[in-house]
Order: sequence, then C-alpha cells, then structure tokens
Amino acid sequence: SQVVVHKGSPRGVHFRRAGPREKVYFKPDEVRACVVTCGGLCPGINTVIREIVCGLNYMYGVDDILGIVGGYRGFYSKNTVKLTPKVVNDIHKRGGTTLLTSRGGHDTVKIVDSIQDRGINQVYIIGGDGTQKGAALIHEEVEKRGMKVAVAGIPKTIDNDIAVIDKSFGFDTAVEEAQRAINAAHVEVECVENGVGVVKLMGRYSGFIAMHATLASRDVDCCLIPESPFYLEGQGGLFQFIESRMKENGHVVIVIAEGAGQEFVAQSIHDVNQKDASGNRLLLDVGLWLSHKIKDHFTQVREMDVNMKYIDPTYMIRAIPSNASDNIYCTLLAQSAVHGAMAGYTGFTVGPVNGKHAYIPIARVTETQNTVRLTDRMWARLLSSTNQPSFLNSCDDILLQQERVDRDMVDMIHKMKITST
Amino acid sequence: SQVVVHKGSPRGVHFRRAGPREKVYFKPDEVRACVVTCGGLCPGINTVIREIVCGLNYMYGVDDILGIVGGYRGFYSKNTVKLTPKVVNDIHKRGGTTLLTSRGGHDTVKIVDSIQDRGINQVYIIGGDGTQKGAALIHEEVEKRGMKVAVAGIPKTIDNDIAVIDKSFGFDTAVEEAQRAINAAHVEVECVENGVGVVKLMGRYSGFIAMHATLASRDVDCCLIPESPFYLEGQGGLFQFIESRMKENGHVVIVIAEGAGQEFVAQSIHDVNQKDASGNRLLLDVGLWLSHKIKDHFTQVREMDVNMKYIDPTYMIRAIPSNASDNIYCTLLAQSAVHGAMAGYTGFTVGPVNGKHAYIPIARVTETQNTVRLTDRMWARLLSSTNQPSFLNSCDDILLQQERVDRDMVDMIHKMKITST
Amino acid sequence: SQVVVHKGSPRGVHFRRAGPREKVYFKPDEVRACVVTCGGLCPGINTVIREIVCGLNYMYGVDDILGIVGGYRGFYSKNTVKLTPKVVNDIHKRGGTTLLTSRGGHDTVKIVDSIQDRGINQVYIIGGDGTQKGAALIHEEVEKRGMKVAVAGIPKTIDNDIAVIDKSFGFDTAVEEAQRAINAAHVEVECVENGVGVVKLMGRYSGFIAMHATLASRDVDCCLIPESPFYLEGQGGLFQFIESRMKENGHVVIVIAEGAGQEFVAQSIHDVNQKDASGNRLLLDVGLWLSHKIKDHFTQVREMDVNMKYIDPTYMIRAIPSNASDNIYCTLLAQSAVHGAMAGYTGFTVGPVNGKHAYIPIARVTETQNTVRLTDRMWARLLSSTNQPSFLNSCDDILLQQERVDRDMVDMIHKMKITST
Amino acid sequence: SQVVVHKGSPRGVHFRRAGPREKVYFKPDEVRACVVTCGGLCPGINTVIREIVCGLNYMYGVDDILGIVGGYRGFYSKNTVKLTPKVVNDIHKRGGTTLLTSRGGHDTVKIVDSIQDRGINQVYIIGGDGTQKGAALIHEEVEKRGMKVAVAGIPKTIDNDIAVIDKSFGFDTAVEEAQRAINAAHVEVECVENGVGVVKLMGRYSGFIAMHATLASRDVDCCLIPESPFYLEGQGGLFQFIESRMKENGHVVIVIAEGAGQEFVAQSIHDVNQKDASGNRLLLDVGLWLSHKIKDHFTQVREMDVNMKYIDPTYMIRAIPSNASDNIYCTLLAQSAVHGAMAGYTGFTVGPVNGKHAYIPIARVTETQNTVRLTDRMWARLLSSTNQPSFLNSCDDILLQQERVDRDMVDMIHKMKITST
Repeated sequence: SQVVVHKGSPRGVHFRRAGPREKVYFKPDEVRACVVTCGGLCPGINTVIREIVCGLNYMYGVDDILGIVGGYRGFYSKNTVKLTPKVVNDIHKRGGTTLLTSRGGHDTVKIVDSIQDRGINQVYIIGGDGTQKGAALIHEEVEKRGMKVAVAGIPKTIDNDIAVIDKSFGFDTAVEEAQRAINAAHVEVECVENGVGVVKLMGRYSGFIAMHATLASRDVDCCLIPESPFYLEGQGGLFQFIESRMKENGHVVIVIAEGAGQEFVAQSIHDVNQKDASGNRLLLDVGLWLSHKIKDHFTQVREMDVNMKYIDPTYMIRAIPSNASDNIYCTLLAQSAVHGAMAGYTGFTVGPVNGKHAYIPIARVTETQNTVRLTDRMWARLLSSTNQPSFLNSCDDILLQQERVDRDMVDMIHKMKITST
Repeated sequence: SQVVVHKGSPRGVHFRRAGPREKVYFKPDEVRACVVTCGGLCPGINTVIREIVCGLNYMYGVDDILGIVGGYRGFYSKNTVKLTPKVVNDIHKRGGTTLLTSRGGHDTVKIVDSIQDRGINQVYIIGGDGTQKGAALIHEEVEKRGMKVAVAGIPKTIDNDIAVIDKSFGFDTAVEEAQRAINAAHVEVECVENGVGVVKLMGRYSGFIAMHATLASRDVDCCLIPESPFYLEGQGGLFQFIESRMKENGHVVIVIAEGAGQEFVAQSIHDVNQKDASGNRLLLDVGLWLSHKIKDHFTQVREMDVNMKYIDPTYMIRAIPSNASDNIYCTLLAQSAVHGAMAGYTGFTVGPVNGKHAYIPIARVTETQNTVRLTDRMWARLLSSTNQPSFLNSCDDILLQQERVDRDMVDMIHKMKITST
Repeated sequence: SQVVVHKGSPRGVHFRRAGPREKVYFKPDEVRACVVTCGGLCPGINTVIREIVCGLNYMYGVDDILGIVGGYRGFYSKNTVKLTPKVVNDIHKRGGTTLLTSRGGHDTVKIVDSIQDRGINQVYIIGGDGTQKGAALIHEEVEKRGMKVAVAGIPKTIDNDIAVIDKSFGFDTAVEEAQRAINAAHVEVECVENGVGVVKLMGRYSGFIAMHATLASRDVDCCLIPESPFYLEGQGGLFQFIESRMKENGHVVIVIAEGAGQEFVAQSIHDVNQKDASGNRLLLDVGLWLSHKIKDHFTQVREMDVNMKYIDPTYMIRAIPSNASDNIYCTLLAQSAVHGAMAGYTGFTVGPVNGKHAYIPIARVTETQNTVRLTDRMWARLLSSTNQPSFLNSCDDILLQQERVDRDMVDMIHKMKITST
Repeated sequence: SQVVVHKGSPRGVHFRRAGPREKVYFKPDEVRACVVTCGGLCPGINTVIREIVCGLNYMYGVDDILGIVGGYRGFYSKNTVKLTPKVVNDIHKRGGTTLLTSRGGHDTVKIVDSIQDRGINQVYIIGGDGTQKGAALIHEEVEKRGMKVAVAGIPKTIDNDIAVIDKSFGFDTAVEEAQRAINAAHVEVECVENGVGVVKLMGRYSGFIAMHATLASRDVDCCLIPESPFYLEGQGGLFQFIESRMKENGHVVIVIAEGAGQEFVAQSIHDVNQKDASGNRLLLDVGLWLSHKIKDHFTQVREMDVNMKYIDPTYMIRAIPSNASDNIYCTLLAQSAVHGAMAGYTGFTVGPVNGKHAYIPIARVTETQNTVRLTDRMWARLLSSTNQPSFLNSCDDILLQQERVDRDMVDMIHKMKITST
C-alpha cells in the first residue's frame, strides 16, 4: 500500500495509500468534526462537503459534524451550522459552496482557540495553495498544544496547479464548460470578416485549463499559457500568425490563460505586485489587454478592419455544479480524507498520485506548483494540433523526444510490423 | 518506451508505447488510407474519424483518405466518400458516425479484395469486440497475400468492456448523460408515495457504466450489474431491500445494466441464445422484466401500491456528441493510430495501458473482456455508498482488503500520525 | 377589464381580467392559505408553488401558508408543512413538486372537513382536468356549508389539453426537452440502413406536444396525433409512406402522441377501458405497438431489414425544471390566483384567454378539452412541413382556407404589391 | 383576414394577414431568389434561412436560390453560394449565420445593379432596424427602375425592439440563455460576504431581455433598463438599495441592459456619440462602469468590503442555436415571407401583430422603436417581484391601473365571488 512518487530517487518517496484502516483511532461518538471551505469557487466543493458528512456518518456512524461558515474567519467570527446527511443530501447539484467562503482571514491562534473551545477533533479544510499552507500552520499549532486533532486538507484549485497530485477536482468540469465559451467565440468570428475571438480562461500560474480546453475543442487556432512566453510583433510573433490565419480561414480563435503574458501587461500598467487577501498576485485582465493590442495593431499598423470578440467566461465556469466524473472524483477525495482522519492521520492532504489515492504531508503539496511542462506530450500534441508558433528561438527544447525502440519484445508484438519482402 | 502490463509476470508483457517514430514507413504521397466504422453508436466516433483525417493530413501531409460507408459491408457494396480536413471539420460536434455503420457484413475475402482493388494501404477500423476480431482476420489475410497494408484498430465500446486498455472512448460521456435519466427517475419517485424508479443503462457483459453512473449520482439506492448475481425473494433479496428503503425514504431508485439478471429473464422466456448480426447475444429487456416483477410482488404479495417509473435512456445516451474529456481522448487515440500506421505497424489496436498510450496486438484485446471486479475498490466504494445488499452468502469475497501499514516510511510521513501523549 | 372568449355569441362570454383589485376581501393576518398539487409531474409546478407563497407574502403580507403533502389525500391523511418564502426560495430550480403528489384520493367531505378543522380560508389547487373537477366539488361543498373560503385552481397539464385557456404551463419546456429525444432518434437512424425511429411523446387526448415538437425539430418525417386517425396498410397508409421515405433518404423519424392510434392497440389487446386513480383511461403503449408493427411489416411482408429505434422520453421530460418562458408564465398564473383569492373570488381557475390573463369558472375549463383542430394553420403548417400523408379520403377538410383579400386597405399597404406595368 | 393594430383609431390600421394566396404571382421556374443576412448575430438566423429555402422549394417548387455572402456588401463584392434544401438541412442546429454577416455596406445603387445583373426577382433580407431601412431603399430603387422584384424583410433583433410586431425571433432563446449568467452571478455572490453580482444583458434601447430574464430567474434583486432612468446616490438611489439588500440577504444580483444609464457613462467619458457601421450608437460598457462605481462607493465612502462579480454573457447568448419555440417562430416568419413574395407582395416585412402573422410595410417597423412601457403590467410585475426602487419622485406614473369591475357578467361568473352572509 505504498505509492511511488519519484522513480528517480534511490528508494523513491512513498506515500501512504489512502483507504480504510484496520485500527480506527477515534470512537464514533467521541468525534466532533468540522468542515471549512476557503478561496474562490470551483465545481465540486459541495460534493466534497456532502461526501465528508455522508462518509463520516454512513461509514463510521459519526453524527456530530459542524460547518464553519465563510472560510477561515468563520472559525472565530461566525456561528457554525450543523451538518447531517439530510442537510447535505442535494447540495452536490448546486454550484458554489453551501458553507460560503472567503479569502484570507487566517489567524492561526484564534482558529486553534476556536477548535479547542468547541471541542473539535477533526478538521477538514477545503481550499487552494494558500489555504493548505494555513492548514499546515493549524496542524503545527494543534501539535504544539498537544491537542489530539486530525487536520485533513482537500486540495481545491480549478487551475490544476497543485503539485504532487494527478489532478484537482473541478478541473474536468471547467474544461467541459469552457467549450461553451470557445464555441461561442468560434461562431461569432466565423460569421464575420476578419473575426478574432479571444477567450480568457482560468490559469493564474498554469495553463492546464487552456491547454485541455483547446485540445478538446478543435476550434482554437492558438493557445497562450503562462508557462510559454510569447511575443506579439515581428517574425514568428502572434500578430503575424493571426494575420496568416485570417488570410487562410477568415477568422482566428485565441484561448489565453489569465496568467499568460502578465509581463506585457505589467509594463504598461505597473501595479502587478498587488496581492489579494489570499496572497495571490492580482492579475490584470490580459484578455482585455490582448484584445486591445490586436485591434490597435490591425487597424492602425496594418490598416485592416478586424472584428474583435472577447469572452471572459470565468464566473460562469466556476459557479456550475460538478459533472459526473468530478462527482466521482470528489467522492473518492472525501472518503479518503474521512478514512485518514478516522485512522488518526493528521497534517495530510489527499489526492491521487500516479493513479492511486494517497495521504500526502501538506507541506509537500504547497512547496511547489504544478505547471504545464513544455516538453510533455500534451503540449506537443497541442502544438501539432493548432500548428501555432512555438515563440521560441530554438525549437530544440520542445522537440518531441524520439521513441527508443525497445529490443526486448514479446513475439506477438514483433509480428505487428509490416514485413518487407 | 515500454508499457508494463502485468507486473506479476517475471519480465512482464511489454507493449510498444504509442507515438511518432523516427522512421516513417510510408511516403505521404503513396498513402491511400481508409476509415470504416462498425457496430452500435457511441459518443466520439466522429471525433476519431476527424482526427485520423486531420492527423494524416496535418502531421504527415497525406491527402488521399477514403471513407468506407456503412460498416464492413461498405467495402464491397457501396461507394466510398473522400475525406478531407474540410469535410470532417465540424463532425465532432454531431453525434453518431458520419460514415454510417452496420452490424455484421464481415466477409474477409471480399473486404481484402476491395482493399487490394482500391489500392488502399492503411485501414483504420473503429468498432467493438466483434469488429476487432474482424480486423484481425483482415490483417491475417492481408499478410497472407503479402500486401503491405497497415491495419489499425480503434476499439469502440461504450460499455468499457474491452480488455487490456484502461478505458474506452465515449464512456465518460455516457456516464455523464446517464445522470439525466437517473435524475429524472429520482425526481419522479420522490414526488409520489412508494415510488420505485428503474433506470436501465448500457452494459451487456460489464457494469462499468452502471457503477460509475451510480457513484456519480448519489441518488441511486441499488446498482445491479452482470458481474454480481442478485436474487429477488427472501432474506437479503432485492424485494426486501426495496421495501426497507421505501419505508425509510418513501422511494427507491435502481440502476440496472442491460446484461444483469439475464438468467432470470431467460428462465421465463427461453430465447436467450439468439444473437444479432455482430454476434452479440440478444438480450431481453431486463429493465421491463424487473419493473414488472417489482410491481407484481408489491401489489400481489405485499398488497402495497407502488409507483413504478421505468426509464431506458440508451439511445439518448449513445447518440450525443462526445464531451470535452472524450474529445481529448479520441484525439489521442486517433493520433496514436496514425503514428503507428505511418511507422509501418499493423495488426495493432491503440489505447492507454496503465495510463500510457500503447500499440497492442489486436488478438490481445479480443481474447478476454474487461469486467467489474467485485474485489476492487470501486465496487467496494459503490457498496459502501449505496449500502445495498451484496447478494452473497458469504461476504468474505468482497471485504475490502485491509491495508498493510508500511514500516518503511520517510520521516515527514511519520509525523502525519496523531501522537498519543 | 373583460376578456372576450367566443366572438360568435351575441354579446360574447366575458371573463374577469386577472389582476390586483382595489378592494381586498381578506385581511392579511386573517388569511390561512394552503397549496396542494395533484396528478402527474409537469415542469413548473414548483415555480407555481413558490410564486403563490412569495406572492401572498410579498404582495399582501400573508405569512400563514400550509403545504398539503401528497395530493388530495394529504388533506386528511398527512401532516402539513409550513411554507415560507425562505423554504420555497430555490424550489423552482428543481423538477417535480416539493409538496409531492398523488392520483385520486378525492373525498370531498373529508377534504372540506380538514379545511374547516384547520381554519384554512384560501385553497390553491394545482392539477389537471380531474383535479379541477375535484376543486369544483370542494368549492360547492364549501359554499353549501357557508364557509368563507376562496378556492382557486391552477390548471396543470403538460399536454396543453385544457379548454378555454391559451396554453398550459410546462408545455413550452416539454416541447424543448422533446427535441433531445427526436434528435437522438434522428442521429440513430441516419447512421444505419433503413433506420426507423419512433419517438413517443405525451398527449393522451391531444397532439399539441407532438405537433409543436415536430415543427420545432425539422427532423421528423411523420407526426401522428390522437385527433388525426391514421391507418397502416395500403395506399396512402403509413407503411407505404415509411417505405417511400426510406427509399428517398434511407431513414424515417416518426413522432407519435401517446393517445394516437389507441383504436388499433385496443383491437389487439382488449383492455383499453381500464382507468387509473385519477380517472384517466389507461393507455397501452402505442409506441411499442407501432414499433413492432413496422418491424413485422417490413421484415415479413416486405422482406426488408429495418433498424427500429424506439425512444420513450416521457419521464425525462416531465421531471425537468421549467425553462425561462414557463417560469415567467408560472409566475403570472400564481400571481393571478393570489390576487383573485385575496379579492374574494372563489371557484375560479386562472389562465390566459386570447392573450389576457383571466379568472374563469372552474366548470368552464373542465366541460370540454382542448384538441388540435385539423383545420387550423398550425396543423396545415405541419403537413406542409413534413409532407406526410393526411390519412383522409377527401382532403377537403384540411384545405387551408384561402385568404380573402381585403379591399379596405390603407394606402401604404396598397403599395406593397408589385405593379404590373 | 385583417389584423387590427391600433384599436384607438376610428377604423384601425389593417395589415394583410400573412399566408398562402390563391393567385401566385411568380411561376416557380422563373423565380431566382436570394437571401442575405446583416448586422449582429441572433439565435435563429440559420432557421430562417433554412425555412426560406425549404419553403420556396417544398411549397412552390422553386430551386434557384442564391445566398449573398457577408451582408449587404456581399451583393457587390463577393460571389454567391447556391442554396438547396440539402445544403441548409442541418444549419438550424448551429448558431450564427451560414451566410456570414457584416454591418453597413449598404450602397443602394450597387446592390440593385447586382440584383438586376444577376436576374434576381425575390430578395429576402434578414436584419435589424438599420438593415430594414436599407431594404426599404432597395424596394424604392427597384420600383423606380420598374423591376418586378419582391423585396421581403425578416426583422431580426435579439433586443425585441422592433415596432409593430409582437416579438422578434431569438428573443426567447436569449432570455433562456441569460439564465445561465444570472445563475452564475447568484451562486458567486451568495457564497461570499457582501457579494454584488452585475450581469449585463443585451438591450441597446429597450430592456425587454433584462426584464424577462429577471422575471424568469427569481434570483435578481434589481433590473436596470434604458426606459427607466435611475440614480446612484442618496435617498431612493441604487447604492442605498444595494446596502439594504446586503444587510438583509448578504448579497445582491443586478441585471443591467447595455443601454441603461448611458447618460452617466457619457458624463465621465464624453464619446457617446460614436456610431458603428450600422449606424448604431456605440455604447460604453455600462456594466463595467457600474461595477467600478459600486466598488468605489462601498470601499471608499462606506468603508465596506464588497465582492464584485461582473458577467457579460453577450456573445455566449448571441451565438447559440435557437430553442424549440424560436425554431417554430422562425419557421412561421420564413413561410410567411415566402408566401408573400410568391404572391407578388413587395416592400413588406413579416411578423405577428396581436398574435396573427401579417405583412407590414417596411417603413412602419422602422419609424419607431419598441420599448418597455413602464405603465405596463409586465414592468409592474417585475417591480412587485424584485421590490426594487422605482427611481421616480412621484410613483403615480407606474401605479398599476386599478381594474374596473365589470357589471355586465354572465351568471356563472357572478357565482365566483365569496358571498357575505
């Protein structure tokens, strides 16, 4: 029941496999659990809440479960709500979070005071990178005080940028829903002359949603992500590519992740260092910026009329309920967290690692971020699918690595090759 | 670039990793490719067709691609259509198959004659188990005649019952769309007294769709699949379970895979041995049968009124376009097939094995079938989620194996346990 | 504020226009209202419930509102639930009825006893034909006992077969949702040879849903409704039409209302006179019957293979939430009912008559049924759109009446004609 | 067959009822028709195109139909495409316009030259206000030259702001799709503290979409439209209302039509007099402006944190295919236009007037605009439903006119009143 993470290391780093344990640490009637949701919305939060409550109740007979209202600050500034299977029965069919959310508000001492005062001994924390760091601090403080409290994190990031784990919940739903915006942009621009559609998708530091949405749609001409710097002017630049596609097809659809090209926007506006209450860098709207830049270039420099259509579907994507595959995924995450906490694990976060659900020390998922690797197959597939410029001086870096042909093959496989007679 | 399949075997069985090869066997202007689709509909067929055509054209410059119309018999009884990126550009947004389909019609000699006569040297065959067996026969005949023709199979089964590969295309879309029927059944039965909803889902020999749709929905009380025999009467039987749930909640929702309980239906009707033109056993409608049985039991034996609501969404699920995640998946399958054929592989089928796309000898995927293993975690999760009867005399078989606690842990993981002071 | 109904009558029959009145009969704090829902599901019931509650509360300050649970029999066999704007706030986003429903159970004396015992003085009854007849009986009994109770009916019939009123709620949503089934049938049959799709839609006595769904879809070859008898065999029969369409297009899609062709089904099965608990004739499944008949005819008589695809989306249509236009419509109905009851009207039902919302004596809506008139423009448009056989010996009856050209025209209109010089 | 428009006038203004005529002016094989689409996208354009083509072909046997590509300028700058029932068969399932579109480009002489040169004798023009004015000019020029050409306009405006006709096509679909954005805004703001959602909907001069979308949703706190001026500061202003709703519910959802409040935006930005190529006033983004104003007011003046969520779903609404009810409506419009042109009418536009489809001189629909009348029932219903401020000094203007109680009633109606004993 170990999950190997880094094959590179001599013995590998192993995580505990998630699942029920023989020895249950807590007696059901001694458990007082709480659930809190922090940060921005993401499809599936309500499913996770539901399954923590139902999991605790159905699998272990726990029925003292509190909802902390409105994020971290709800611990010390608000009343709690009682959560039962009946209360949460239908919430997975609604978007958002039934426990409300907020950014920031993390005051470790006040929160642990509140946990202590309320007699809570299981804390389930659903939130992104900043929230998980907060969870680690709570875990430390809890240990320092010698409290027997299980702290379990369920990583939430619609952007899929959390390290170590294979995928974050809500991502699949987001990619699906993004199709609607891309499709609208495509219809708009293919009905006019020189139509240029720009769709901004989520992705503060990583372009996973943009990349997957582009691959799924087949209607996108160019996908711009934070990991792959681009430039506008000159040979191999975006303007040149747009112009050539307009000549060829009459229209262009560009998908841009919100975090892409921030260096350009920063140059013109100078306030890039602001952060929001969760500590996330405040991003300027690169979609609006890009739309204006394209419009200006073509009308002023190239003296062409272009029909710009800019769509920002962010809130419409974040606010929908999770789809079937995310619902299943959220269920597994919640059940893993419940099994772990009941077994007495603490300071862990849950998630699949190389396809197997594991318990991961919180610090491991917050120390780095998951980003699109430009040398990976998926990005190579995207480039070959859109045929967009690589924006690189030397293409070497992203050349798809040639496959070693293995000598050591079973017979049957050998016969798969067309024989030259 | 090997993909390990059976860890159990001494050296393991390795498949070639799918992807582009250094040496391309065919010169682009010598390629005459054809695509054929066989068997029942499944979301994503059009995406696979589109991406084979676009992949051949964009990645390799091939532009002589024929569509065989109406399944295997189209090789010898119909004209072909010319496929270009422009022709297939929008087909992935429509359900069904733009090349039409049929069952049966496999006449190896006539088909290979037609391949020879038309000068075709790449054959892409999209279809299920029976179709892949046909592809293997074509491959053998082609080899026997010494023709240099690449035969590539793309496995299609909405049921996810094809062996070796991780998942079949269209499955994710089917599970998603099945939610609509389950939701309707749930609404219907929760609005009346003693409502019993029965939703029949696809799954001739395997219950994957039923199992996943049940896990995703959270509204299902009982899931019946071909792999897990059930019984109606007596202690631990389905009728007893239904009655207890009706007492508890006022209503019950049952999901049943089409292949479940066929032994019962057979007993009453005796024609279970018929097969359709693809060689599939013709199934009697177990959903109708079950609905009648439940109705009869409760009205006659128990003298209770029950409100039966039976929904069969099969065609409404099969006919929709693929969702975003299936679209990406279909693209990968098609591109793998194209890379393989262009590299000169033949007699292979494509699909992911343990998360990595591979080339698999056709015979390997047709010799067995993929079924839900009752000892697996997913089925255990389903049972714990629905709390339905196991229908087993001894529960031992499906006890979730207790996790071995690994001694060999890195330090950081060690600290995850609540310390008993 | 009169609404003219029959222009034919000398002075016309006038209904009171629905809306707020100067004199309010009930003092808000004296009102004890109740809401009950009866019969089958229909999109929009929850919106009507919500808007009665919110209308009473927001417009008149009433806050004593009870929900009767489970239809008519809930008056005497169940506890009530308290309805507040908060309780009903989100229910319009769910299908079904939050108050549950049942058929039958109408016992006038027991119901009026319960009304009297509970001190209820406003009764809102949402239900179809049979339910409205029950409402009339309650109204009579209430009057007989000299109780000052307002009885208001809100007509519910997804079939649009209620007389006098222009349209019933949920109809628009049903037509929209039916497209999904028609579309699936069309995709299924256009992908195979000799595909025949049969979609059964709601419509016990009237073919409105089938007619509108056919006109909206443009994919239907033939629409069969109860009002227009059809025959299968021989010249001008359905089989001949199907065969000709299959020759022309390779496939046929037939939409059939559940009440169509019952005379045929009756002949073969003989139990057509059964009624359900609401007094509705129990219909045999004409869709299954027709599918078998077509299959038999072509395989046995014509010795052709046909691919039958039968879809019955009934429950999937009934159980969805109402769309935007039905939501608005349900709001108007509920507000009209509230204004009427608060003004002291009783024994009335609400609905639009010639485009204006009116109060209509209950008896007027139950004495006849609304059916598709074969001489109307909509049916003529359908026939010209599908080009299906009229199944009439003489076509005279359905000839579109030629338009009289009016002599009396304003000048500007005169200039609209192309002048022959 | 007359349609009464203004009941006020002595004899009323009558329009010819739309429909087939006894005398057909054009012989089918002499007809050369063309279709052109101008202005912005709107759900249903493709259905209108499809039904003009199918109507001409199926009802009259016309098969010489040209598509003018890219709006008015397509007459003189582009090649035409041939339109057949087969070509247009599926286009109604796609959004946008298969004939492409543009703004402006109206050069009467060049267009009529092109009509003459190509031998076109039926011109179908789909477009908004500006486009219909252009159609009137073409009609005049055609008459001046003595050409026997039928010019038929099909009014297109997603805003429903075309005068005389009851409703414009695509409106229903737009209201439906707008729910998605309102719902997202609602979910976003109800999950945070002091959430303020702003959804900008189409409506340059009229607030119909905003009003209907608000009534349908039941989640909107305030609806701002061009017809009803509003103010921000002070007693009875928007800020005060927002603050009180935030205190009451914790969140606020505002729907604003794009043309609302332009006077404010103009004051701060001064370039309100620009027009686009169709002659429409270029509007500044009032949604962005309002969002900033609210944010500034609460953070700076009131020193409260507000969570602003701004959604502009315009393109995502415009680009979708029409729903079932719009599909039926588009069919009626197209068939009316075809019957009219075939009968030799010209210079007319089609549309329902008081529920009946009519032929209307083009000038009549362009001389005024349809706007929401604040004294109408629908606006009164909206105000009573949202309970938003009227923004009027005197409320007299929008008081719902009290209903006259008619004395002259049939007996049965009389009995509807509760009798005071």
